[in-house]
Amino acid sequence: MQLKSIGSFFVGGRTVTLAGLPVEQRRLAIGAAPRPVDPNGDHVTGQMYVQEYRLTAPRAPFPVVFWHGGGMTGANWETTPDGRPGWITQFLEAGFDVLVCDAVERGRSSWSMFPQIYEGAPLFRTKNEAWDMFRMGPAGSYATDPALRQPWPQVQFPPEAFDAFACQWVPRWVGHEAVTEAAYDALISRVGPCFVVGHSQGGGFALQMTQRRPADVRAVVALEPSGAPAAEGISSALPPHLVMWGDHIAEHAVWTRYRASVDAYLADLRRHAVPAHTLDLPAEGIAGNTHFLMMDRNGAQLAERIIAWLSAVDH
Amino acid sequence: MQLKSIGSFFVGGRTVTLAGLPVEQRRLAIGAAPRPVDPNGDHVTGQMYVQEYRLTAPRAPFPVVFWHGGGMTGANWETTPDGRPGWITQFLEAGFDVLVCDAVERGRSSWSMFPQIYEGAPLFRTKNEAWDMFRMGPAGSYATDPALRQPWPQVQFPPEAFDAFACQWVPRWVGHEAVTEAAYDALISRVGPCFVVGHSQGGGFALQMTQRRPADVRAVVALEPSGAPAAEGISSALPPHLVMWGDHIAEHAVWTRYRASVDAYLADLRRHAVPAHTLDLPAEGIAGNTHFLMMDRNGAQLAERIIAWLSAVDH
Repeated sequence: MQLKSIGSFFVGGRTVTLAGLPVEQRRLAIGAAPRPVDPNGDHVTGQMYVQEYRLTAPRAPFPVVFWHGGGMTGANWETTPDGRPGWITQFLEAGFDVLVCDAVERGRSSWSMFPQIYEGAPLFRTKNEAWDMFRMGPAGSYATDPALRQPWPQVQFPPEAFDAFACQWVPRWVGHEAVTEAAYDALISRVGPCFVVGHSQGGGFALQMTQRRPADVRAVVALEPSGAPAAEGISSALPPHLVMWGDHIAEHAVWTRYRASVDAYLADLRRHAVPAHTLDLPAEGIAGNTHFLMMDRNGAQLAERIIAWLSAVDH
Repeated sequence: MQLKSIGSFFVGGRTVTLAGLPVEQRRLAIGAAPRPVDPNGDHVTGQMYVQEYRLTAPRAPFPVVFWHGGGMTGANWETTPDGRPGWITQFLEAGFDVLVCDAVERGRSSWSMFPQIYEGAPLFRTKNEAWDMFRMGPAGSYATDPALRQPWPQVQFPPEAFDAFACQWVPRWVGHEAVTEAAYDALISRVGPCFVVGHSQGGGFALQMTQRRPADVRAVVALEPSGAPAAEGISSALPPHLVMWGDHIAEHAVWTRYRASVDAYLADLRRHAVPAHTLDLPAEGIAGNTHFLMMDRNGAQLAERIIAWLSAVDH
């Protein structure tokens, strides 16, 4: 990979001034005497971290922007938990400039005091919940001991890498949609025309952004989006949409509901003559894909499908 | 830059199983009905995120590993807050493979529930405190309005980028030294022979690691380390040390104390015939450097000094 630049920047954010909070006596190093720590003053909140890889000679017409899902960071798109090159590498090698976000309050975007700035505490996802929610195996098939876990037959996620994957998970807050969307808006304003690839919660944000900024989002790819925007925002000016789904949706009530809402949204897009394609992997005979398509064993083939689709769409 | 690979991995971490905690009813999306959220089960804690850039043809004998300071992430070493290429770029261009850490509980390394896993709440640094502690200006010269701030004359940090820099700050816990060092140990075990460049708290960890792993740390650079290890750990087998200090140490009691302990440590190293060089920038006539040497306007020149030193040391 011949790169012109590797870097990062922040978008969004505002300063909140806290006052009237008690100065605490805190021990700042093991064995040290407590000293005063004053939380009063100016804090930044709502900023978003963006990593940017620019090729010396990009071949794609626009950069691709990756938006991870809930409780994750941009690390999702790097090396897979079992050590294979991730989609950042694959898209760079395919000639795309690449931008990768850590959503607001996650990873390098930092997070803010609660209850002083955020209303309350975040959610932490257990491995137990994730195993089920990410469709690694049937409900209740998680066990602390990896040898006792029962993944779906033909599962595409490497089950032996599930614990390594758990290292990537970060806490997440709920109800922060507005500040998150404001930061994504600031990003799109800075980047200009681009392709957006969003996963799960990030896929929902990508679909919403496409409604708000159809001139900048030249094509959108939503990987198992956890919800769709209101149909009222659809116009024939929207760019092409691709939505991808893995296996075992029908066995999971939450995913069945998400999928139904997205299917209905895509039908509405088509009624407005917006190109909207659903890539249903099991319907094509590809079994075992989990919620984390980009980390699945066939993830490189799935990225190739997306790259081919982006190359063929009329943007 | 011709790169062979861009990727990341996690080191360290262990699983903690929580039990007996109440299942909360939480509203997971705006307007949605509350649904049960169960914090009981398996959580990972203590893992560390490492980003790895490998050149197609490295010219340096060992990779360089960057360790940021307290309340920071690996973003410190990327693009400077005013948009100049950071030290990652500069070291890659100089022929070094580069690894960048987010210390445990910071950035993409995630953090854990408190008080269930961590003992208590983290510390959040205000801009007010940082302006003083990072030696941007005299004590009390911070103001919320950037136009009213009074940086030191000749300050090398671009003052107009201070608010952009504040976007990088993350909460930090105290008393987590053991778990942080365990993750750094796991990293050194994985990487093998390397050069370690640590800043502030990360500089202190780098000096300690050099005592523990003198065969793997082939040279160590500590940028304004906030403390030094015990002299008892010194042996003549330790590799060359370089310590760099910016301006206005004498005007700041905390930095005066840190510097004195590090100066004493370097004197001890020299008594054991360990090469130990102090680069005191103001003593060389270079005025205005802050605690964030890698972001200062002359940061590229400072990196050149380090690169030249690493090229000349007997490792």
